[in-house]
Amino acid sequence: MDVFTKSFPNSEGPCIRRAWPPAAAAPPPRNKTRIMAPAGTKKGILERLDAGEVVIGDGGFVFALEKRGYVKAGPWTPEAAAEHPEAVRQLHREFLRAGSNVMQTFTFYASDDKLENRGHTQRFTGQQINEAACDLAREVADEGDALVAGGVSQTPSYLSCKSEDEVKAIFKKQMDVFVQKNVDFLIAEYFEHVEEAEWAVQVLKTTGKPVAATLCIGPKGDLNGVSPGDCAVKLVKAGAQIVGINCHFDPETCVKTVKMMKEGVEKAGLKAHYMTQPLAYHTPDCNRQGFIDLPEFPFGLEPRILTRWDMQKYAREAYNAGIRYIGGCCGFEPYHIRAVAEELQADRGFLPAGSEKHGLWGSGLEMHTKPWVRARARRDYWEKLKPASGRPYCPSLSTPDGWGVTKGHAELVQQKEATSKEELKALFDKASHTH
Amino acid sequence: MDVFTKSFPNSEGPCIRRAWPPAAAAPPPRNKTRIMAPAGTKKGILERLDAGEVVIGDGGFVFALEKRGYVKAGPWTPEAAAEHPEAVRQLHREFLRAGSNVMQTFTFYASDDKLENRGHTQRFTGQQINEAACDLAREVADEGDALVAGGVSQTPSYLSCKSEDEVKAIFKKQMDVFVQKNVDFLIAEYFEHVEEAEWAVQVLKTTGKPVAATLCIGPKGDLNGVSPGDCAVKLVKAGAQIVGINCHFDPETCVKTVKMMKEGVEKAGLKAHYMTQPLAYHTPDCNRQGFIDLPEFPFGLEPRILTRWDMQKYAREAYNAGIRYIGGCCGFEPYHIRAVAEELQADRGFLPAGSEKHGLWGSGLEMHTKPWVRARARRDYWEKLKPASGRPYCPSLSTPDGWGVTKGHAELVQQKEATSKEELKALFDKASHTH
Amino acid sequence: MDVFTKSFPNSEGPCIRRAWPPAAAAPPPRNKTRIMAPAGTKKGILERLDAGEVVIGDGGFVFALEKRGYVKAGPWTPEAAAEHPEAVRQLHREFLRAGSNVMQTFTFYASDDKLENRGHTQRFTGQQINEAACDLAREVADEGDALVAGGVSQTPSYLSCKSEDEVKAIFKKQMDVFVQKNVDFLIAEYFEHVEEAEWAVQVLKTTGKPVAATLCIGPKGDLNGVSPGDCAVKLVKAGAQIVGINCHFDPETCVKTVKMMKEGVEKAGLKAHYMTQPLAYHTPDCNRQGFIDLPEFPFGLEPRILTRWDMQKYAREAYNAGIRYIGGCCGFEPYHIRAVAEELQADRGFLPAGSEKHGLWGSGLEMHTKPWVRARARRDYWEKLKPASGRPYCPSLSTPDGWGVTKGHAELVQQKEATSKEELKALFDKASHTH
Amino acid sequence: MDVFTKSFPNSEGPCIRRAWPPAAAAPPPRNKTRIMAPAGTKKGILERLDAGEVVIGDGGFVFALEKRGYVKAGPWTPEAAAEHPEAVRQLHREFLRAGSNVMQTFTFYASDDKLENRGHTQRFTGQQINEAACDLAREVADEGDALVAGGVSQTPSYLSCKSEDEVKAIFKKQMDVFVQKNVDFLIAEYFEHVEEAEWAVQVLKTTGKPVAATLCIGPKGDLNGVSPGDCAVKLVKAGAQIVGINCHFDPETCVKTVKMMKEGVEKAGLKAHYMTQPLAYHTPDCNRQGFIDLPEFPFGLEPRILTRWDMQKYAREAYNAGIRYIGGCCGFEPYHIRAVAEELQADRGFLPAGSEKHGLWGSGLEMHTKPWVRARARRDYWEKLKPASGRPYCPSLSTPDGWGVTKGHAELVQQKEATSKEELKALFDKASHTH
Repeated sequence: MDVFTKSFPNSEGPCIRRAWPPAAAAPPPRNKTRIMAPAGTKKGILERLDAGEVVIGDGGFVFALEKRGYVKAGPWTPEAAAEHPEAVRQLHREFLRAGSNVMQTFTFYASDDKLENRGHTQRFTGQQINEAACDLAREVADEGDALVAGGVSQTPSYLSCKSEDEVKAIFKKQMDVFVQKNVDFLIAEYFEHVEEAEWAVQVLKTTGKPVAATLCIGPKGDLNGVSPGDCAVKLVKAGAQIVGINCHFDPETCVKTVKMMKEGVEKAGLKAHYMTQPLAYHTPDCNRQGFIDLPEFPFGLEPRILTRWDMQKYAREAYNAGIRYIGGCCGFEPYHIRAVAEELQADRGFLPAGSEKHGLWGSGLEMHTKPWVRARARRDYWEKLKPASGRPYCPSLSTPDGWGVTKGHAELVQQKEATSKEELKALFDKASHTH
Repeated sequence: MDVFTKSFPNSEGPCIRRAWPPAAAAPPPRNKTRIMAPAGTKKGILERLDAGEVVIGDGGFVFALEKRGYVKAGPWTPEAAAEHPEAVRQLHREFLRAGSNVMQTFTFYASDDKLENRGHTQRFTGQQINEAACDLAREVADEGDALVAGGVSQTPSYLSCKSEDEVKAIFKKQMDVFVQKNVDFLIAEYFEHVEEAEWAVQVLKTTGKPVAATLCIGPKGDLNGVSPGDCAVKLVKAGAQIVGINCHFDPETCVKTVKMMKEGVEKAGLKAHYMTQPLAYHTPDCNRQGFIDLPEFPFGLEPRILTRWDMQKYAREAYNAGIRYIGGCCGFEPYHIRAVAEELQADRGFLPAGSEKHGLWGSGLEMHTKPWVRARARRDYWEKLKPASGRPYCPSLSTPDGWGVTKGHAELVQQKEATSKEELKALFDKASHTH
Repeated sequence: MDVFTKSFPNSEGPCIRRAWPPAAAAPPPRNKTRIMAPAGTKKGILERLDAGEVVIGDGGFVFALEKRGYVKAGPWTPEAAAEHPEAVRQLHREFLRAGSNVMQTFTFYASDDKLENRGHTQRFTGQQINEAACDLAREVADEGDALVAGGVSQTPSYLSCKSEDEVKAIFKKQMDVFVQKNVDFLIAEYFEHVEEAEWAVQVLKTTGKPVAATLCIGPKGDLNGVSPGDCAVKLVKAGAQIVGINCHFDPETCVKTVKMMKEGVEKAGLKAHYMTQPLAYHTPDCNRQGFIDLPEFPFGLEPRILTRWDMQKYAREAYNAGIRYIGGCCGFEPYHIRAVAEELQADRGFLPAGSEKHGLWGSGLEMHTKPWVRARARRDYWEKLKPASGRPYCPSLSTPDGWGVTKGHAELVQQKEATSKEELKALFDKASHTH
Repeated sequence: MDVFTKSFPNSEGPCIRRAWPPAAAAPPPRNKTRIMAPAGTKKGILERLDAGEVVIGDGGFVFALEKRGYVKAGPWTPEAAAEHPEAVRQLHREFLRAGSNVMQTFTFYASDDKLENRGHTQRFTGQQINEAACDLAREVADEGDALVAGGVSQTPSYLSCKSEDEVKAIFKKQMDVFVQKNVDFLIAEYFEHVEEAEWAVQVLKTTGKPVAATLCIGPKGDLNGVSPGDCAVKLVKAGAQIVGINCHFDPETCVKTVKMMKEGVEKAGLKAHYMTQPLAYHTPDCNRQGFIDLPEFPFGLEPRILTRWDMQKYAREAYNAGIRYIGGCCGFEPYHIRAVAEELQADRGFLPAGSEKHGLWGSGLEMHTKPWVRARARRDYWEKLKPASGRPYCPSLSTPDGWGVTKGHAELVQQKEATSKEELKALFDKASHTH
């Protein structure tokens, strides 16, 4: 009998259980049974985390779909959920197949104040985008053992110094769709100021659903200088059951920052689950504002992309740090999430469906044409590899930009109209002088 | 009126007319009329090239689908055409949207001798895979101005010293499907020995359809030491109307090699069209066998991925060298093909549909939140950028492997069974001593 | 009239007055009068520092003379003072000419316990070496405006856990020579444990001469974990009037560490002068034990050597940090010290004699044969240059060794006999496993 | 009895013979007798080469003395021979001690047309400089087994299109001093145009002394496009007994170019000895004009300096290529020449005096304080080391300048006056636009 027993969407399920334990760095076992909770009987996010299970997140949709041609860099808005649903659906499926247990609704920057902002000619309302995103996430989540999480993120309103009420009203509008579409839990993510994240959590808590909250900050804390430990305490006190970090920094930095959060929470005598969804880009040279400030952002980041082996290292370090919700953000492709799932196969007891097409630790190369490539079919080889850039005229590190401004600064007040030629000229000149 | 005038598959067509002039940084096209032939009246590949038009190819499916979880590295076979058609269809659509004029059937390594090879448990016959691939390519090609090309590639039979008749029989079997499915033209690609490519061309020519032939070689010639110029002459004499290079080397090297082919053809008093479909990886450190021999192949190539700006440079250089069929191979994502189309917009007179989601030369950043990122919304910035790797512990270049063996050598005779543990051990030991 | 007014040792003095203004690129000094005290009337070290003058140190003799063929790497002992005096004298002269105000006696590791140690066949007694070194330093100091400093450094006796009395007796033996030869002041330098440095200071204080003390530590503190601030307080309390850092780290790290020392001293309500004599090697990748642990130490450090422009940056940063005794250690060549003097010309009011042979900020290139090299005759060019390594197969950073042992550990007990073949074999094996 | 038996200048001779053969990578043997031909009975340069002996050259004085403070970069003239003889004498001694068999007179650019050129205020006549240089070279050569070679190099007169007679008169003036001082042989070196080198050889041949001729060109040939093979044939036909390459490129490139010269000479049925004196800088990124065009020239070359291990590789490759006169040029320090001598100890039968202070292949580290540094006391370690630059913000390679001009171009006509501010401004502007 074929080991792949179910036939959706194309003949096997998203999660497969393997004979246990498999040989450490060996080719995948031939005998495996699929684990698949029937729809409706899935365990909730807190049930899983309370039981000590690993929950694997998905990757960032904005960057992945930009490369595929469906998101515009600059505005970074998610109208593709309504405009090109087949592309969003396919990406959800690939992450599911790679091992993700969470389908996040593709609603990043889908607040009305952002959609109306900066001259973008909208063809869909915020509500249409949020609804379409919920439907797509649910459709694919039901194809496997995944939950649906509705997500909100930082708003132009906050950066432009709108009132707490105004900002909260923005969050509520997205939340109303999530409630109507009955998502499984909620995520407040990508906040640079913990205060705004607290407001988001306070709004989302009113639903009664579990709430996760992640900031896009590093070890130096938020843009107001609040330390990671203090940020985490504030989020837990606001009502988040899961706290952590997403985006802006590489896995190493994010795990380090979550550790600081955990220390803060424990020192305060509180309890929480921990989560991290880092970049798939190496960012050892970033300052407080993360990869946004790198000269390579966003169109020259390729040389920084993590390999699958970097991802296995990340998954192990996150796990060892006590983090159990382990996912990704910008730069993550499905194979990156699969690498996380493969690293944690011993801890979870099974491999994802996508491992059907991947020999662990390079073992698929046993079947390569050239003998010297077959000689790379081993863990030792890939763990030690220091991959070359093929770019001898480029440096290893960059000096980040960052003009020393944050919330409230005139240059950061968000505007509806596209930047004018005169404004741009002034910016170009300023940039030329800081380099 | 909306500038996006046609409405498939999701509200606009693959080629779009823009209100003009659009973004600041973009040079104005000479001819702003949208070119979109209705299905059934499309110009053939030779008609286009004879008229001096640019034909944009697609990217390599094997690597792109490996990252998405549908192809296994090592065997590199294309069973996904039958097994996961929605994933293959989606990738076709993304390349169409990015500007591709050719949908290559996903039939790389889909010859029976390869599929049966090396222990892979086949769930589909070669015929099933080839048929499914033709159907998918045709379905998407009909959504825009693209042709379908049936492709064959090098065979284990040749490397294992089978006879000319046996090798030609392999090609014929795939070709019979292409004829039955009525593809628009044929491509013989990825040959390391020009002799095998000649055999392939001789077989494909019997269909009466146009034939293109590309080798995966560099300036040093094929693995038997035949120079690029001589290779090209042999291919033209065998009947190919389009000759060139695909895979194994970066754009710079491939364009250089095609130039050598062109010189050879012209010196011989022959005529041909020229084509290049390079890697999307920088390979300045490769020797004759290309990126296969790099220590990073295939699971550590990330730092070598070209940016979109590298691709614009490639498109210009290929165009300036007289190459008019300009596409990609392993490593290409849809945004890389879009960059080719954007660089050539003035030459072609229009932008691809996917440019709806891309500000030329970074102009989308005019709408970014941070002012110092807005200051990057200009051609000058991205053209001069030397992107850092974020990997200070890694080198810029690597020393390629390559054990000095080629066709006919015992270590290269292809085998059905997976390499045994003993054979692998011997390979690992040999590898350790050569490093 | 010639601008070079004094005529020793070869026609001009170590400090020169220039016809003014000289080369285009040079900022004008505030006070162009030549400072040159006649022998016998020189100001002492504390007089200078108390008056706010900059005192420029020399560079490290051990590394410079290793490259010239007079010191053996491994033992690093200074027998050349007695064995090859002409080589030592010449190096003193070059530093004097480059602007040094201090001739340190070449007595590094010239304690009897070190000289007898580790199988080195001594041809000179410690006393002979110390005496010869004092004579050479005095001879050259008298040729210009320089003082003689007698120096002691860390001892094998301390690392091997000898008693305070035994260790102090070692210092006293060297000190007796310095007193007899009447050096101008004393330096206790290159200590990894502040406790040993305190003992040295306590001994040297008994002479009544000014005492400077520098540790070879970084921001993480000494090998027992004492912070830079606490170390500095201990040294001042032990009697040092000048405290700081030498060796083991690059200028950036050393200046940063001295700043921490300064903060500690000021916080404790104490007073001191500050001094730094860093490496001329970039060491951003070092851990607590500094460049010793880098895989490149000591025979592969070339790619890390600082340029003269790096040195000007160092001099400025040290000056801005309130450091007034600014010199160098291992890796410094005379032109590095000259760069320090040139950067500080406006602050000091004059240039060193060696600047006779150096156009400030590259202005000497105005006379180069090739026009594109003449175009480099400007500050802007050299300040912005990011010099390439010419080594594309090498990384930018290394992972330091360091087996987690320090004072008292069996592997660190110093031995008289050369390491045996068996001991070496064990070390090689251990090293292979840690890489 | 001490193994070092002679006592000049400080107790031992420049060459020592070791028990033979020594252990391959072992510490230096304890039993060795000095080989030292008494003055007056030394074998001549051609006697040595005809007998198949290795002749080790010295390193470049201009760069070494620039770092020591006695030569000005830009004019690069050798007035130090007269002005600071003790510095020149000391450098000669260090090279002798390192193993050099040739003391080249420090007469580079000591032709009157160069000395008068470009605004340099001369304090010595060309004749004074040439005479002083001969005396210094002879004095030190007589301290060991070294010959004196008088050297001439390319002239501003040739670049400024003076006549053959005028250019030859320049060479003759220097040559007259060499004859009067009775040097052992003559070297015409550092020519970018083979025609000028032929003229120099023709002049030098009139002395009856052996003549060596080296060009500063790479594999692409001289600045008029004459290939290395053709250049060598011309030089041999002009009368040179020794031909080769010096300066402008790294050892790898120079050895490769000399191989091309050798092939040319042999193909022409001629005979010659071969010689190479490369840079001590890695220059893989240079074009035809060599390191002059690198952005790092001359004040940012530090990261490119070769290690001693790079030098051993060079010496072996040169030897294997049939080159027997093996020396160095700009960037060489005495320890680089010692590394050449150590690599060739088996071929020559002895080690240089300077090896007294150097453990072969790092064996001196057996006596280092830290055990992990002792573990580096082995050939395997240093041969495999890929030294890091410590400069993560810098690239590995640079793009050379070079404005496409050569002999006869207006911008290259040499001038007496320093470049004016206006001329410099124009150059700066031009440079800014080419970057």
